[in-house]
Amino acid sequence: MEKVIEFLDANEAKWIDRLSENVAVASISCQPENRPQTIEQMHIADKMLKGLGCSTEMVDIGSHQMHDGETHPLPPIILGKLGEDPNKKTLLIYGHLDVQPALTSDGWDTDPFVLTEKDGKMYGRGSTDDKGPVLGWVNVIESYQKTNTEIPINIKFCLEGMEESGSVGLEELVRKRDDFFQTNVDWVCISDNYFLGKTKPCVTYGLRGCMYFYLEVICAKQDLHSGVFGGSVHEATVELSHLFASMIDVKGKILIDGVGKEVDELTEEEMETYTDIDFDMAAYQADVGTNLLTEDTKAKLLMRRWREPSLSIHGMQGAFAEPGEKTVIPGKVIGKFSIRLVPSMSFDHVEKCVTDHIDAVHAKLGTQNQVKCYLAKGPGKPWKAQTNTSNFQAAIKAVEDVWGVKPDLTREGCSIPITLVFEEVTGRSVLLLPMGSSDDGAHSQNEKLNKINYTNGMKVFANYIHRLGKE
Amino acid sequence: MEKVIEFLDANEAKWIDRLSENVAVASISCQPENRPQTIEQMHIADKMLKGLGCSTEMVDIGSHQMHDGETHPLPPIILGKLGEDPNKKTLLIYGHLDVQPALTSDGWDTDPFVLTEKDGKMYGRGSTDDKGPVLGWVNVIESYQKTNTEIPINIKFCLEGMEESGSVGLEELVRKRDDFFQTNVDWVCISDNYFLGKTKPCVTYGLRGCMYFYLEVICAKQDLHSGVFGGSVHEATVELSHLFASMIDVKGKILIDGVGKEVDELTEEEMETYTDIDFDMAAYQADVGTNLLTEDTKAKLLMRRWREPSLSIHGMQGAFAEPGEKTVIPGKVIGKFSIRLVPSMSFDHVEKCVTDHIDAVHAKLGTQNQVKCYLAKGPGKPWKAQTNTSNFQAAIKAVEDVWGVKPDLTREGCSIPITLVFEEVTGRSVLLLPMGSSDDGAHSQNEKLNKINYTNGMKVFANYIHRLGKE
Repeated sequence: MEKVIEFLDANEAKWIDRLSENVAVASISCQPENRPQTIEQMHIADKMLKGLGCSTEMVDIGSHQMHDGETHPLPPIILGKLGEDPNKKTLLIYGHLDVQPALTSDGWDTDPFVLTEKDGKMYGRGSTDDKGPVLGWVNVIESYQKTNTEIPINIKFCLEGMEESGSVGLEELVRKRDDFFQTNVDWVCISDNYFLGKTKPCVTYGLRGCMYFYLEVICAKQDLHSGVFGGSVHEATVELSHLFASMIDVKGKILIDGVGKEVDELTEEEMETYTDIDFDMAAYQADVGTNLLTEDTKAKLLMRRWREPSLSIHGMQGAFAEPGEKTVIPGKVIGKFSIRLVPSMSFDHVEKCVTDHIDAVHAKLGTQNQVKCYLAKGPGKPWKAQTNTSNFQAAIKAVEDVWGVKPDLTREGCSIPITLVFEEVTGRSVLLLPMGSSDDGAHSQNEKLNKINYTNGMKVFANYIHRLGKE
Repeated sequence: MEKVIEFLDANEAKWIDRLSENVAVASISCQPENRPQTIEQMHIADKMLKGLGCSTEMVDIGSHQMHDGETHPLPPIILGKLGEDPNKKTLLIYGHLDVQPALTSDGWDTDPFVLTEKDGKMYGRGSTDDKGPVLGWVNVIESYQKTNTEIPINIKFCLEGMEESGSVGLEELVRKRDDFFQTNVDWVCISDNYFLGKTKPCVTYGLRGCMYFYLEVICAKQDLHSGVFGGSVHEATVELSHLFASMIDVKGKILIDGVGKEVDELTEEEMETYTDIDFDMAAYQADVGTNLLTEDTKAKLLMRRWREPSLSIHGMQGAFAEPGEKTVIPGKVIGKFSIRLVPSMSFDHVEKCVTDHIDAVHAKLGTQNQVKCYLAKGPGKPWKAQTNTSNFQAAIKAVEDVWGVKPDLTREGCSIPITLVFEEVTGRSVLLLPMGSSDDGAHSQNEKLNKINYTNGMKVFANYIHRLGKE
């Protein structure tokens, strides 16, 4: 293992060159004109894996219609295997090689597709999300091999090129290919999230789920002129505003009866995890750019984001949303809101609470408008892993070895639906092992990966493999 | 006068042909590609007026940028004079010759630019709004002239080609050309509205004004991901919903202190005008397509629309308004609402009531969000005319003579800003004398003018001139 770490250190320039070469490929999955580069990027990754001796399969997942109205081929999903030793356990690694759009004119200080180092930070689209972590794995395996160090586990790769565009086709493939995912997988590792703060590493064990609702209100069979009709109808936008206000107060407290009922009790053990966590309230508030947060202590705010449901009002479809003045009474509006779920909230219970609430408030308002509240397809379940597994323990110790600090155990407020799919299909421990920091600007201008996060991140991967091999 | 009426009757085919010829000109003022026809239509009107012996002036009001990004010349405004006899009084007639867009594919049963008669209805874009009424005046003057009947008053015309696009340049011209508008005008007549119902004629003496408000709420310096940040900020959409709900209940009752304070008391005399008014609640409700109106009697509903303020919520700018699901917490939203004003509400008082209300509710909510409520430019005053003027009496009697029924005295819920400008600049009695019916579909598919409205409308004009001549 020492040799692997030494090799990683000695070849830093090579790893950065490799990241440069991959950042240069504008694999923007949402843009039709970049589809060829996105596919090319998958072929580059396939070549790298083959170079390591992996057996790979480029799975054709078909084509889809994009916003230009044309049908485009989807980037293939790579399923790779390195080692099939029946005496070794197997780690499944997930990553993606597509990126968000980026234009210098959006406000980048450097060319987003030219990796540029400055003050220990490597700027470039995809540097942290998610090319850096994927290449980190490639570099680590190469380092094991070049130093003639036996890799103590089998490794499987699942790499996609559509993550930034809803991972089209991935879930279907994972559920279909049980030969690959259901058998011979002992642990799953996803490196596609971030430290909670800027410097202290973490291992992530939870995600919130999401239920997205449509709330339709119809007051008239068409839009009406507010001069001619104002005062004679029970306006849909007015009823929608009252319904919205009935669901949530301005401090974010959900007013829908029963929604919080299924939330897991806070244990003392969990409470302790918040004590030493590296989280700077002032920096967070400044990043958000708000005058007042909903909570005044670190623990309470993190709990609001990780272990409590939240309700957000996203907007109104059918109402006037453009600049300027339009004197319309919309005949039909569709409010959009969503609820973030935490363990052990269930879809059925939440849906019933929401629709019962809307029915009751609407009846009380007495407008006789047509009101309908319904769930959008594809709700996502919350995810919370046990951290006493060999997978988590190996990752936690690997981080501690490399960074010299016990990592924070964190959750994320958002949803990464494939995490749950991996857990369900493999039946094994899944963990999120981030490489980048909270200020990397994953989807923003000047996305970057700190050099220390890249180099230490690789050492964490190497150490993690080493530790898993002892299980 | 009998000769004039006989001539109008005898030449019905000619008047319909004239309407056909003008409907055929697609003078759609909002479409750049139709600007040449809109200008051509003004030249056709100018030629008609000159044919009657009018001295006319085609006033160049410059050019403007349209939605294609190009600068286009504005259609000229026609100022015409027929007779300048110092012993006669003068009537100023306003009308417009531009139209709303229309495509057969929008759902027209016939070509919108081919006047098509069916069951006593003449279908075509502009038939009722406002080519029919303008040509009605031309036909009436021709009938006086061809029957050698002296026109007992001087007549001035102000005809524009931009009414459907905000009457660009008109108010400025009216205020600047006091030689034309301020001197030698005794009455003003506008024929650009509709009967309250389908068959009973009316004369219109009131319009509501309008104040349009922006209500900005900022909770963060940028949009936030609802998964990552949900629960930690005082969401702008949530505060806006609470602010909206605080201003108005679902029955349309304004909850802002003081807004109703300046509304004129209902007099017994006014109350009486509602008794015999021709208004079919069931037909109105069916046209709107709503399950429940806010009032259950004709008088109460008309008062809500004409003599009481109303508040409409038009929408939210900056929130998610598209189809589909977006899990955004908008950092900044701008609510749009407007209040329709009635006599004697004043801008200053209403604005103060609204901003005081928002300030108070926002302070009580305690979010520390940035909240700002401000008035859009160009608020419109309410208008209510005295009906005991020679102008109104002549129009009322003319309608009675022709239709055999005393016209309803009506108001409109909407605003026609030029009405007030004419009243202010001329200092004379202005009235609205509609030719068309409520079901003409002025801005809709299958716009039409009933043949009886056209022919009787012309007789009303002829009779009205005759009666004004006796003043």
